[in-house]
Amino acid sequence: MITVALPKGALLKDCIKLLQSVGLDFSAFLDSSNRQLQIHDTTGTAKALLVRTHDVPVYVEYGQAQLGVVGYDVLREKSPKVAHLADLKFGKCRLSVAVKASSPYRQSLELPAHGRVASKFVHCAREYFHNLDMPVEIVPLYGSVELGPITGMSEAIVDLVSTGRTLTENGLIEIDVLFESSARLIAHPLSYRLNSDNLEHLISQLREATLATA
Amino acid sequence: MITVALPKGALLKDCIKLLQSVGLDFSAFLDSSNRQLQIHDTTGTAKALLVRTHDVPVYVEYGQAQLGVVGYDVLREKSPKVAHLADLKFGKCRLSVAVKASSPYRQSLELPAHGRVASKFVHCAREYFHNLDMPVEIVPLYGSVELGPITGMSEAIVDLVSTGRTLTENGLIEIDVLFESSARLIAHPLSYRLNSDNLEHLISQLREATLATA
Repeated sequence: MITVALPKGALLKDCIKLLQSVGLDFSAFLDSSNRQLQIHDTTGTAKALLVRTHDVPVYVEYGQAQLGVVGYDVLREKSPKVAHLADLKFGKCRLSVAVKASSPYRQSLELPAHGRVASKFVHCAREYFHNLDMPVEIVPLYGSVELGPITGMSEAIVDLVSTGRTLTENGLIEIDVLFESSARLIAHPLSYRLNSDNLEHLISQLREATLATA
Repeated sequence: MITVALPKGALLKDCIKLLQSVGLDFSAFLDSSNRQLQIHDTTGTAKALLVRTHDVPVYVEYGQAQLGVVGYDVLREKSPKVAHLADLKFGKCRLSVAVKASSPYRQSLELPAHGRVASKFVHCAREYFHNLDMPVEIVPLYGSVELGPITGMSEAIVDLVSTGRTLTENGLIEIDVLFESSARLIAHPLSYRLNSDNLEHLISQLREATLATA
């Protein structure tokens, strides 16, 4: 039986819709009263795990799920050993540098040397400023990164932006984009190579469904 | 003005109660419609930041908050450079090793060598098994750690246990305790040493309030 790891949160609804379009129904995960973390499809051909978005590549890397859906941002941040199969075209957002609208900075290169940048994406942020040859200190945060500049702890943040509403509400503006992100289909490399449980068939169906809706 | 970093989640209610007992009212954070991440006390003498529990020591370490409340588990996991002032006696729980109730393991030493242990507390788990001289692989997860043994990805987990309800619901049992945890009062070392904003007075009040309710 094929197991698919699905991410809690923003991408879940589109994941469920995509899987429904190829005949696999995991819509029970969308029921707000649901407490189950794994469910079987009604046809008995597949199982889904509901996990935190950062944990999806872990389940796929260890082979506990043959397939998974996760944001490109997570793949860039964690560089997991998984096969990256397809861009699913939903969950579009970007990893951006933002500063206080009232600050004088309008691009990353204008930030003060040895300034501070708060981020949940420590690895991506470090690599970006390293490539710009700018020595900044990355302050690792788990949430509410916008508090960094508001409290004065950091000059900038590196965070995911989709509508930009959170930035605006907090008096911040986007000044540079590290990369664009969207949901990606990933696979356990060995299962993919061995085509366990005819994985290739399901992957082809998912690719076609993605092209049909794009 | 003194700034206090408060953790979202399980400890928040008791934090607010403790601060109210010394005359500081941040109860607006408990309003479910609240979206503010920083509020001023009505007396204008203090400010509170509402942040993720793992971020509390970051704000205190960087001096953006002179005081903070955080679980001992976070202090053990992250070893932040903060002054550890007092045990506040609430938020009691323990970091434990748990396995499937149906497994043969009844203590950590019985786990298979080179087995896998899933945890959000990667550092604590690694240190614990290292001290037992047991070579295990720690699988880092962000949430729903109980899925580790359920899916077969790991033989055991290291996770926080308070009532034990989550373990029971998932067919797991606790077999060893790494350490007991509770909420702790922490301070920015330099502010504490310099007694900025008469920090020592507030700390004494908080100590007394804790003793009074203990």
